Amino acid sequence: MGYPVMLHIANQHVVVIGGGRVAERKIKGLLEAEAKITVVAPSATGGIQQLAAAGALVWRRKTFSPDDIKEAWMVIAATNNREVNEAVAAAAEPYQLINIADDPERSNFHVPAVVRRDRLTIAVSTGGASPTVAQQIRRQLAEQYDEDCGRYIEFLYECRQFILRNVSDERIRKKLFKAIAQESFRKKGNWEEEFHRLLEMTL
Amino acid sequence: MGYPVMLHIANQHVVVIGGGRVAERKIKGLLEAEAKITVVAPSATGGIQQLAAAGALVWRRKTFSPDDIKEAWMVIAATNNREVNEAVAAAAEPYQLINIADDPERSNFHVPAVVRRDRLTIAVSTGGASPTVAQQIRRQLAEQYDEDCGRYIEFLYECRQFILRNVSDERIRKKLFKAIAQESFRKKGNWEEEFHRLLEMTL
Repeated sequence: MGYPVMLHIANQHVVVIGGGRVAERKIKGLLEAEAKITVVAPSATGGIQQLAAAGALVWRRKTFSPDDIKEAWMVIAATNNREVNEAVAAAAEPYQLINIADDPERSNFHVPAVVRRDRLTIAVSTGGASPTVAQQIRRQLAEQYDEDCGRYIEFLYECRQFILRNVSDERIRKKLFKAIAQESFRKKGNWEEEFHRLLEMTL
Repeated sequence: MGYPVMLHIANQHVVVIGGGRVAERKIKGLLEAEAKITVVAPSATGGIQQLAAAGALVWRRKTFSPDDIKEAWMVIAATNNREVNEAVAAAAEPYQLINIADDPERSNFHVPAVVRRDRLTIAVSTGGASPTVAQQIRRQLAEQYDEDCGRYIEFLYECRQFILRNVSDERIRKKLFKAIAQESFRKKGNWEEEFHRLLEMTL
């Protein structure tokens, strides 16, 4: 059974071994979280080549060697070659975060199915029971927590920053945090205006 | 913005600094995932003391010193003493997973709100926008994905193991995985029976 965490991966060094479709899919999730990505692969999909050309990642056009992951905080082996995947697993230090495609035994993490709406992240894992059901649940949640929901949570974030900067009284802070998180507040729609009204009333 | 992963934390060494209510809550989540836990704190809640007495964790009854986290794969500073939390952050190696209470800047991960139903795990994070809303969504999801849903996913896991052991044809495997993951299958209710019928029809 896994332990769910949100990694603060921005600017952390991630090495992806493999340049196929699976690698590309994983790279996209990592880029959203602003990781610093190096891809090690003798060949790569058009998508990965474009990202390399745009400077979004570094592509080392070569086969894997243990030195490639020396500086990595996270290592992802996403080749369809079992021998290469095993060589990556063997080269990793026990403290490195490592995911080997199709080999949960040699991985110390796996990536769940994810719905992202700006700051809102919902992750679904069935612990290997059924990737199909994980995707079904992901789709349900994507419908339920839509773009509008993402915008609301982004608004809450902005308010939170404003409150932390401008309100020093701990009690009033908590009151404001709570008020803007209520469903009744959310349903009003004109959030900015309502937030200003609330501030005027409270301060 | 965080990158959601499921850590395979079973038997990994986790050191929790602090013995209060926050520490206890975090410890419970870690125990569910079968981590090997050491608590470092001069005093601890009754709950933590009971877990220590039962052998579920090791309690080092002392104040923090850098040596305490040398062997740790994950470090959690959950004291309400800013100086101690900062000393923990300073002692950690860059490759160690570390979470410092109330200090996202010095943490390289945070723990989302979580719904657990056997193998099904759903994690919710608002990226610090609103813990209140994260808990609201968690409660909605807990209602929606109930115990029954957990049992169904546990059943899918058992089936998957059976299929992997007993069906060698890759095409038939995929067909079976897909069939038992359909909503129409789930709604039948008598899953075991239906699975046997399916096997007889397919093999």
